[in-house]
This record gives sequence, structure tokens and C-alpha cells, in this order.
Amino acid sequence: MRAVVYRGREEVAVEEVPEPDCGPEQVKIKVAHNGICGTDLHEYYAGPIFVPTAEPHPLTGASAPVVLGHEFAGTVVETGSEVSGLRKGDRVAVEPVYRCDTCPACLDGHYNICRTIGFHGLSCDGGMAEYTVVPARMAHKLPASVSDELGALVEPMSVAYHAAGLGEVGPGSSAVVFGAGPIGIGVWFALRGLGVEKITVVEPSPVRRAALLALGADDVLDPADTDPVAHVRDRTGGRGADAAYDAAGVRAAVDTALDCVGHRKHLVSVAIYERPLETSLIKLVMSESGIRGSLCYTARDYAAVIDLMAAGHYDTTGWVEHIPLDKVVEEGFTALHAGLKMKVLVDPV
Amino acid sequence: MRAVVYRGREEVAVEEVPEPDCGPEQVKIKVAHNGICGTDLHEYYAGPIFVPTAEPHPLTGASAPVVLGHEFAGTVVETGSEVSGLRKGDRVAVEPVYRCDTCPACLDGHYNICRTIGFHGLSCDGGMAEYTVVPARMAHKLPASVSDELGALVEPMSVAYHAAGLGEVGPGSSAVVFGAGPIGIGVWFALRGLGVEKITVVEPSPVRRAALLALGADDVLDPADTDPVAHVRDRTGGRGADAAYDAAGVRAAVDTALDCVGHRKHLVSVAIYERPLETSLIKLVMSESGIRGSLCYTARDYAAVIDLMAAGHYDTTGWVEHIPLDKVVEEGFTALHAGLKMKVLVDPV
Ligand SMILES: [Zn+2]
Ligand SMILES: [Zn+2]
Ligand SMILES: [Zn+2]
Ligand SMILES: [Zn+2]
Repeated sequence: MRAVVYRGREEVAVEEVPEPDCGPEQVKIKVAHNGICGTDLHEYYAGPIFVPTAEPHPLTGASAPVVLGHEFAGTVVETGSEVSGLRKGDRVAVEPVYRCDTCPACLDGHYNICRTIGFHGLSCDGGMAEYTVVPARMAHKLPASVSDELGALVEPMSVAYHAAGLGEVGPGSSAVVFGAGPIGIGVWFALRGLGVEKITVVEPSPVRRAALLALGADDVLDPADTDPVAHVRDRTGGRGADAAYDAAGVRAAVDTALDCVGHRKHLVSVAIYERPLETSLIKLVMSESGIRGSLCYTARDYAAVIDLMAAGHYDTTGWVEHIPLDKVVEEGFTALHAGLKMKVLVDPV
Repeated sequence: MRAVVYRGREEVAVEEVPEPDCGPEQVKIKVAHNGICGTDLHEYYAGPIFVPTAEPHPLTGASAPVVLGHEFAGTVVETGSEVSGLRKGDRVAVEPVYRCDTCPACLDGHYNICRTIGFHGLSCDGGMAEYTVVPARMAHKLPASVSDELGALVEPMSVAYHAAGLGEVGPGSSAVVFGAGPIGIGVWFALRGLGVEKITVVEPSPVRRAALLALGADDVLDPADTDPVAHVRDRTGGRGADAAYDAAGVRAAVDTALDCVGHRKHLVSVAIYERPLETSLIKLVMSESGIRGSLCYTARDYAAVIDLMAAGHYDTTGWVEHIPLDKVVEEGFTALHAGLKMKVLVDPV
């Protein structure tokens, strides 16, 4: 079969590889779509980061070269002898996390921050291929009302949904989101799903602002035009937002977000910071506000996102594009890196 | 009467000033002791910061020159005509906060982060004098078992107690405190008062370490000698601390504290950061930990600290020194700034 193989930094190519065998506790999936995300781009341009090279990953036993792809949905074509609850023909979204089940985080049920976390499609062969095999527990069944396209987006939307929840918001709350890339859009969808009505999104890129406005967002700011701090204060009767989200990962966003968030409220960070940022901790002290990090998701987030998708809360119009597998480098990695596209799904067939 | 008058940066002198008159809702206090703290030092060496100069403080109506002193206890010598519940001879610790009662924080009961907060002894004449007058609501009665000396420490100990509580710890919890100055010591006392048994304190200064050890601390580290991260992991079965506290305000403390604190736990910051710090926000993301700020106290913290003092939880041995009023510059500000003393109480008479 054909697959997108990662051998090292800027060494990604479509290759012919053997079809994987389905183990007794696994299911074999014919991949419908597989998203490329910021993590893949990091791996391509700055990696290897997550892909194990010197030693095999402690949980998967695999190392480079690996087939990329951790955001995917498809159809079960084979089930292992020990698998129950899934059968051939089931359409599934895959929750691609390998966890140790023994570290303090796992023992507390927070396997999203497992100390030896691994990902299907980074720590072992993944979903940018015609077929992939995963432990059956990773497969979340999709209802008929959730398309394969949305199914491939459950992973990044779960990252965003998990972050949204850490802001402790609900109906009647206000929120401000910095960044309208795929995760920022996902936070916006999640906040709407949680019943939050007053959502301000701050995004310098006109293309991203337009995409979000087309999805129905009613308060999207260009920070070069409008001061987010004054705007949010105004919109919240002077209190500041009940939660702020950083899905941008740059200093200006963090600093402005800390000025937008209300007293004793939190900035939730769902960005990957490559280096330490200068942060005005005095702002936290003066209003007893906080910053808290958000990483990945658990099965609960997957279930919640799939439910919201089934209820019609998510829309791919205007920000999601499809490309064929053999165009993955030029129309995928290169185009995303250049900022020419927002979200790309690779279609293996 | 004699008082310590602040006129501007490095312009502090003992002057003869009129005794203040007691208004109808005020009490007049003969000051027993008044502490000098980091805020006073900032005002002296880098101010005016809190002392109003261009315009009078919106809540007190006062501006420089002002009599310093916001950490004090003494005896009521006169009560205003409208005052009930306090009488001549009562020994009191003063909670020196003026608040607006109308901003969002005040309306939520968090007047410690009032947007126009003012302090008795910075925003108007304070307690480094023979007498001072305060609104009666600021005066907390001291039980016979709490000395005037401890009474003068209720203010900084309440700053620390408030911070300790934001760490959400109790019996069975573990904690790590960075910095063993007066606030770090206060956090240690407060944590003990809250029933926390496993408390590690990290402090580079041998003098401060010795002071804390003499008070009964059982785990005080020199970070040059012992890696706090490995030590705390080891002491907490690999989990990391349930709460970390930054009472140091320097980058190394913040960064190390973030490595010491457990997953989904918080670093409480009770430091004053003069400038933005480089902070490794990625650490927050990878373990879903957080940083939250702590500022001042409310009446609840005062009451809790006075109760703990009455129960014998606080001890001034080895870290608190007294000086007479007329030595306030050389034996107070200068000595503290040079690191020659830890905590100084000014005795007006
Ligand atoms: Zn991803
Ligand atoms: Zn684990
Ligand atoms: Zn003070
Ligand atoms: Zn207020």
C-alpha cells in the first residue's frame, strides 16, 4: 500500500510499504481522511521531536522510519480475535494515544499528560496510508450523522474541547480566544457547544478572520485595528472575560490575554511554546488571575465532540481542504508551512 | 509626635508632626510596633510607587508627604462617636486596606484585588508614628495570648496565609516554597497551620535557611547543593508537590518551581515581579499545571492568622528584630536593603 513515510527532518515521501497485520486486540482501518497539523509540521521542519530515533518508543517499540498521521477516521475492515464491540464496516475516529497506565497522571485518570505518552502516527506507524491497525480501545464509533470528514477532525477538535473545558465556562460566561487557526476555531466551536454566548476571537490574519466570520462568529477582531483589552472590558461590563485562551503561542497574545481575563479567572494555554516567553507575572498577582496549560484530550473529550458533531455544531466550510496522498509534501506540508492553507486532510485513495 | 515621613525616593526622615485627630468612624491607636517590608523598601529605593504624588489617592484623598507604616499593632486610645465594638485599651492589629466597594472585585468580595486599592501607611499617613487613626473596621482585636509583636506581624503573615490557601492544600498534601524571607517564612507557618506536613523550602541564603531551621522546619534546601526537582519528586513518590509557592520572584525560582509541582497542580505566586520574566509556559502545557497570583488578604485571612497565633503557631525567634523610630533609615531601610536583617519592627516609643 502507499503511505507517507517520515525518515527525518524534511525527509518525508510517499512510499510503497506492506499492509499492516491486524493483531488479536487490534482493528484494521481503511483510512478515509487524515489531517496534517502543527505537530506534523514541527516534526517535518524541526524534528525529529516526537518520532523516536535513537531508541524505540517505550510503549510502541517502534522508531523511525514511521508512517505519519494521527488525526484520522475510516472504516473497520478487520477485527482481531480478542476484539468485541466493533465490527467490519463500523466507521470510527481514532483517539491515537498510547499511555503507560502506571505513571501518576495515568493513575489519576489524566492519561492525556502521561509521562511516556505516545501517538499513533508519530511513535509508530499511523494513518497517512491506505490502512492502519490500532488497539481496539482507540476506535470511537461514529454515528451515521457524523461524516468521515468530520471524523478526521475529532482529534484536533478534542484538543480544543479539552482546553475549552479547563476555562470553567458555560452558559452566561464570556470568553476570548487568541488565534483562529484550526485549534482556535476548535475552541470557538467547543465554547459554543458549551453554551458560551459572548465569544471574542482575536486574529491578525484576514484570511483566518474571514473563515471564522463565515462560520458564524459574531465578534472577531483584528488586534491591529481594535484594542482587545478595551473591547473585552466593554463587552463584559468592565469585568474582563471569564476565560481567555491562547491558541497562538506568541508573547503578544499571552500578554494581551492576561489583560483581557477577569480577576481570579484563567488564561488557558493550548499552544506549543518553542521557547520560554517573557511573561508579565505581575499581572497574575495584581488580579489573582492564572495561567493553566491544556494538553491533548481523553476519551471523554472524544465522546463529547462526537456528540456535538452529531448535533450539527461543527462545520468544515471554508477552512478544511482535501489533497490526495501523493501531493502530501507540496500541497500539504509546504502549503501549510507557507500559510496558504488552514487545515489539510490527506485522502489516501 | 514623631513619625517617619516619606517625601520621595530616598527622602525619608523622622519628623515632628501633629497628632492625628480621631474622626467619628475612626479609632486612634498608640502604635506598639510597625514592620518594614519589601513594599516599603521599593517605595524608598524605587518609588514613589504606591504613595500618591501627582494626584491624591481616590479613596484616602491624601498624597505625599505621608507617614509610612502599614504593618502595625497597638492599643486603642480613643474611639470616634460612631464606633461600637471597640473601646479604649483594646489591643488591635490593623488591616490597612482602603477599597472602593464598587469595582467588580470588591463586588465579588475580593477587595484584596480592588482596582483602586489603597493602604494605610502608603496612600495616607500610617503607623510608623506614635499614633495613627484608622477606620474602625480596619482594627482586629487581639486576644491576650497574642503579643503586640505578633500583632504587628499579622499583616505580612496574612499575605502569606492568603497565598498558602490558594494552593488548595491541607493535611496529607505536600508543598514546596521558594524563598525564606518573611513572606516565605509566613507561607511555611501558614502551611503548617493548614495541616500540611511535607513542606520543602528552597533558599540560597545560609542565614535564611538557618532561621527557618531554628523555627523547626525539617526540609530546607540550598539549591546550589541539592536539586530541588529530584528532591521533591523523591519526597512525593514521583508525583511532584501538590502546591508550589514563589516567594522569591526570580526566574530560577519560577522555572524550578514549575518542575517541582505535580501534574494539574499550581504554582502560587506571592512575589512582586518588577519586570516580565522568561517563563517556560510549555511546562504548564505538558503537565496541565498552572500559575496563579496571590495578592494581599481579606478579613478572613486576618482572623485565621490571629487564631493560629493564639494557638501558638507563630514564633518570632531569630528572624524579627526591633529598632527605635529614630534609627529607621540606617537600622531599618539600609540594613534590610543590604540583606543584613530579615524583618524589622520599628518601635515608636
Ligand atoms: Zn495533531
Ligand atoms: Zn502514564
Ligand atoms: Zn508590607
Ligand atoms: Zn474595589
